[in-house]
Parts: sequence; C-alpha cells; structure tokens
Amino acid sequence: MAEKTEKTGKAVFESIFGDKAAQTEAMLYALSPELARLGIDFPFGEFYAHSDLLDLKSRELITLSTLITQGTWPQLKIHLYAALNVGCTFVEIEQAILQLIVYVGMPKVINAMTVLKEVRDEMNEG
Amino acid sequence: MAEKTEKTGKAVFESIFGDKAAQTEAMLYALSPELARLGIDFPFGEFYAHSDLLDLKSRELITLSTLITQGTWPQLKIHLYAALNVGCTFVEIEQAILQLIVYVGMPKVINAMTVLKEVRDEMNEG
Amino acid sequence: MAEKTEKTGKAVFESIFGDKAAQTEAMLYALSPELARLGIDFPFGEFYAHSDLLDLKSRELITLSTLITQGTWPQLKIHLYAALNVGCTFVEIEQAILQLIVYVGMPKVINAMTVLKEVRDEMNEG
Amino acid sequence: MAEKTEKTGKAVFESIFGDKAAQTEAMLYALSPELARLGIDFPFGEFYAHSDLLDLKSRELITLSTLITQGTWPQLKIHLYAALNVGCTFVEIEQAILQLIVYVGMPKVINAMTVLKEVRDEMNEG
Amino acid sequence: MAEKTEKTGKAVFESIFGDKAAQTEAMLYALSPELARLGIDFPFGEFYAHSDLLDLKSRELITLSTLITQGTWPQLKIHLYAALNVGCTFVEIEQAILQLIVYVGMPKVINAMTVLKEVRDEMNEG
Amino acid sequence: MAEKTEKTGKAVFESIFGDKAAQTEAMLYALSPELARLGIDFPFGEFYAHSDLLDLKSRELITLSTLITQGTWPQLKIHLYAALNVGCTFVEIEQAILQLIVYVGMPKVINAMTVLKEVRDEMNEG
Repeated sequence: MAEKTEKTGKAVFESIFGDKAAQTEAMLYALSPELARLGIDFPFGEFYAHSDLLDLKSRELITLSTLITQGTWPQLKIHLYAALNVGCTFVEIEQAILQLIVYVGMPKVINAMTVLKEVRDEMNEG
Repeated sequence: MAEKTEKTGKAVFESIFGDKAAQTEAMLYALSPELARLGIDFPFGEFYAHSDLLDLKSRELITLSTLITQGTWPQLKIHLYAALNVGCTFVEIEQAILQLIVYVGMPKVINAMTVLKEVRDEMNEG
Repeated sequence: MAEKTEKTGKAVFESIFGDKAAQTEAMLYALSPELARLGIDFPFGEFYAHSDLLDLKSRELITLSTLITQGTWPQLKIHLYAALNVGCTFVEIEQAILQLIVYVGMPKVINAMTVLKEVRDEMNEG
Repeated sequence: MAEKTEKTGKAVFESIFGDKAAQTEAMLYALSPELARLGIDFPFGEFYAHSDLLDLKSRELITLSTLITQGTWPQLKIHLYAALNVGCTFVEIEQAILQLIVYVGMPKVINAMTVLKEVRDEMNEG
Repeated sequence: MAEKTEKTGKAVFESIFGDKAAQTEAMLYALSPELARLGIDFPFGEFYAHSDLLDLKSRELITLSTLITQGTWPQLKIHLYAALNVGCTFVEIEQAILQLIVYVGMPKVINAMTVLKEVRDEMNEG
Repeated sequence: MAEKTEKTGKAVFESIFGDKAAQTEAMLYALSPELARLGIDFPFGEFYAHSDLLDLKSRELITLSTLITQGTWPQLKIHLYAALNVGCTFVEIEQAILQLIVYVGMPKVINAMTVLKEVRDEMNEG
C-alpha cells in the first residue's frame, strides 16, 4: 500500500498547481485552517501522489469532468490552470469539454466553455 | 472542421464497444429507433471519432467520471467494459474511481466500485 | 388568489391518476400517513388544481422533465401513466424525452426510455 | 424519419429566439466555433424542428423545467425569453416555476423566480 | 395530526429568521406574491412548527446539509443566519460543513465555507 | 488541532455502526481494500471522531440529509441504522425526511421513506 505523509501531499499539490499553488492554499486557509489541511493533504497525498498508477494528465481530465458535471465553476477554473500546468493542451481540454455534451447536455458545457475563455483571456493578458 | 458521416459514428462505436457493441445497439433500438440513431451517430461521430485530438483512453476516463458523478449506473457498467476495451487497465480505472472520493464523496464512489466488481465477476466467469 | 381545500387536492389527484390513483395513495399511506397527506393535498390542491392557468398536459410534461433530470425513476413511471391519462400521446412523450438529450445528455434519456418501455409493455399486456 | 440540414437548425433557432438569436449565436461562437455549430444545429435541427410532433410552447416548458432543476441559470434566462417568444405567457411560466416546488423544493424555485424577475425588469425598461 | 394555520407558519418563520425575517419575506414577495405565501406558510407551518418532534437546531443543520449538497448558495447564506439564530454555534456549523467532505467532496464544501466567511465578515462589520 | 490515528477511525466507526459494522467493512473490503481503508479511516477518524464539537445525532441527521438529496439509497439505508444506533428516534428521522419536501421536493422524500420502511420491516422481523 502506498505511503502518505503530509509533506508528500503539499509537494504534489505545489507541483500540480505551479504558480497558482500559493494563492490557492492561502484562499483555503482564509476560509478555515482545517479546510486547508484537509483540502491539500487528503486529495494530493492520497490520490494525485500515485501518478505512477494513473498519470497526472488523466487525473486532471477526470477532475475537469466531474467539476463540469457538478457545475462547481470556481474549482473548474482552478483545475483548468492545473490541467494546463501538468501538460494538457487547450485542444485536449476543449475536446474534453465538448465530449460532455453527450453526457450532461449543452447548458453545463456552455458554462464550462465560459470559464475556459476566462482562463484564456487571463493568460493572454499576462 | 472535422467531417462526420453516419458510417464513421457506427464504426467508431463498434471499435470502442467491441463485443458489447451489438447488444448495446440492440438495447437502444428496442427502446426507440430514434434513440439508437441519435445515441450512436452523435456521440461517436461527433466526439469519439476525434481520437487524434483527444485519445480514446482519456475519453473513456472522462466518461467514467461524469457517469459516476451523475450516478447513472447502467451506463457506467457499459463504459467500464468500453474503457477496458480501449486499453485502460483495472488499476487505472480503480484509481480513477478512488480519486472521485475527493470530488463527489464516498457514497457514489462505493456505488461505482460495486458496478466495477460486477464487471470483474462477469469477466472471471466467462 | 386561488382557494384550496383538501377535497380539491384529492379530487384533482384522482382525475389525473385515473385507475392508478388508489394504489398510489395506498403506497404513500403505507410509507407514512403524514407523507400521504402532504403528497396529495399540497401538489394537487396548490398546483395541479390551477389547470385554468396552465393546462394539465403541459403540467405533466414539466413534471416528466424534472423527474428525468433528477433520475427519480419510480416517480417517472407513475407520471408517465398520468401524462397519458391527461391526454399526452406516446409520440409527444417520446419527443419530450428525446429533447432532453440536449439538456441532460444521453444516459438519463436512455434510462427514461427504459421506464417508458416498461409502461408500454404493461399497457400491452393488460 | 425526419430530415435535418444545418440550415433547418439555424432557421428554427432564429424563429424561437427571435431578436435574441444573433447575440446568443455570437456568444457561443466567441466561446468556441465548434460549440456554436453543435449548439445550434443539433438541438434545433434534431429536436425543436419537429414542432409538428410536439409543439414549441410545450418544448420550451420542458426546457425551463430541466434548466431550473439543474440550476443552470444563464441558460434559464435565455429560454425564458424564448418561451415568451413562442407564445408562453408570464402567467403560464410562473405557474410552471411554482409547480416545481413539488419536485425540486423551494430553493431552486426561488432562484428561478429571481431570473424571471430580471427578464420582466429588462422587458419593462426597453 | 398537527394543526397548521397560516399565522403559525409566519410566526415560526419570524422566530427562526429573527432580524432577517422581514427582508427575506420582502424579497420573496417582490419575486411573486404566490411564492411568498407558499414559501413561508408551507415550510414553517407544516415542518419547522413541529420543533417538539425535531428541534430547531437539528432542523437547521439538516437544511444546511441539503443546501450545500444542492449548491443553492443564496439560500445557504440565509440559513446560516437562521442556524446561528436558533442556537447553532460557529464551531458546530463549521463541523457540519467539513463533515460533508465525506459525502459531497471538496468543491461544494469550499464553496460553502466561502458563504460562511461572508456571514462572519458581515457580522463582524455590524 | 485534533489528532487522528487509524485506530480512532475504526473505533468510532464501530461505535456508530454497532452490529452492522462488521458486515459494512466486509462489503467495502470486498469491493476494494483501498476503499475500505479510505472509507473508514478518513470519515470516522477525521470527522465523526470530533463528537465533542458536533454530537453524533446531529452528524447522522446531516448525513441522512445529504444522502437523500443525492439519492444514494444504499448508503441511506446503512445510515438509517447508524442514526438509530446513536440515539435518533424513528419520529425524529421521519421528521427529518419530511422536512426535505421543502428542500428537494416529493420524489426523493418518497424514495427515502421507502428505504426507511425497509429498515422498519427488517427490525420488526428480527
């Protein structure tokens, strides 16, 4: 069974979120220190850390899919940045979103594309 | 822009579903001929056909994620077979399901694992 | 403002559910007498009773749409019978379900068509 | 079986959305040209085009119901305009929303009424 | 069986919502007078009024749980104030939200904590 | 910050699930050993263990609420037994379910009452 230490969770989180890691952690901590601990240690130490079993690009596509299905748009935006950071291309991400027309219909896909456009625009500005 | 013909949709569907394709199409047709046409042509001709833009393994993982999030268990079962057929391993699929504990919580993940076990058992029997 | 009495709720319920009314009410009462009271009086006295403001066929199509979207299949089955009873045709119902491919995707629509087929089969048997 | 051409989808879309059609299409195209093609051709060519099988007023009520159930508010706003454009009255729309108290509870109905009020206010202003 | 009169519903509503009651009722009335009647009389007269059968603190925790699960954030904010007003502490509310990581995953819990922070900040300001 | 050890999670789990604990853990383990570890250690060690901050009866009501809202019926059944085991009465549980008519509508509440009846019948048999 894979070992997990708090340090591994944070390190994995930082490698996936890149330059968005610090502000994401700060945002969580400002809401609740407990939430920050649980929100970094558990997901990234228990799951994303096992990139040898399932690679990070696949993991981020899986996460994008569930976030779009749930309509949790703030988290979608954060993970669009993460997906790009681990090597997904804009084309792959757009294909992933469009495919969800089959599974969740047009409304959520349109809303997801709106968030993707925000990310594109932000990246073009700076 | 990618071209799409009805023949492409059905061919892609058959390559992804393998030996489950015929019974799946028959099941759809028995419900509604319109549903069978729309259910094969649109998803597989418009989306899965573009495996050059996003590969089939990634596409199936995206589909598993949304089906588990939605709790649509009959379709999850069908796509577990499809995911295996396009090259996802049981380890990768199990990792994908476990990762969703972070995003949808334990209940849906337990129910998804129950469907995966059905697939494993069926494959062991024959 | 529209008036509502308990008697109106039950009478409207019975006119919409036809020969399925008695067994539906009995089913609710067996679960919880409170549930039966709330489940007949409120929906049918407060809403369906106002068929002069929005007709019963429209009301049943609205109900079918939300039940399919939610995936609450036992209630979908009951309301498929109700929709037929108030004058919706099988063609209209099938069109309503198929249209939801655009809004909820294929999985829930396939599951809805499965319930519709059960209703068709039951009606053909007796 | 009904025939479908891209022109039919766009023509149906324009007749339903009236003076909101151009801006809606432009909004989709700005997000993704693929999305605009899929978002107009498929829904309106494959489904809304068959208004002989299920009329447009019924179709819009079905759409309002699923959008409220899903909580996809931007699309609800667009379709409130569409529902009015195809002949639904404010009274019918309000009755449709209120009826959903029975099926989705108060929160989503309150949020839907908030969107309806936005539409009313916009229409009163100009 | 418990008796219910319109006056009981409004009185219970006012006792639970405290100084937020008037503005909440006004908000509902501005959307739709029918909605205001149904939104106060039914929930508070039929359910919250029976605080002898299930106490108000428990009732508000149950309501917080479903609102977070549904992602209906405007109503969550209102009920966070109500929960505090009927005697839930910030610690209890935070524990309730964190527990939902197990059942709905991190995204909705983060969004819920964001709403809780808004309430804290508003209460600190005045 | 509260400490957590694997032993605490399992002990809390066993105290809450009583005579259903062994079979529940066995069921999870049969699906996936990883799932059993994550499904007992994390929820019960990180959350339910803090019954000094939020009591177990409240915690189970919160859990019932989210499970009914999500429609995850197998887990609802398990937690109905757990709720009774930690001291919730049938009256309190029934009131909790009925209150959700306000927040999720009738369909899910009827389905929840159906599961409650199963539990009642099983308890009456032995």
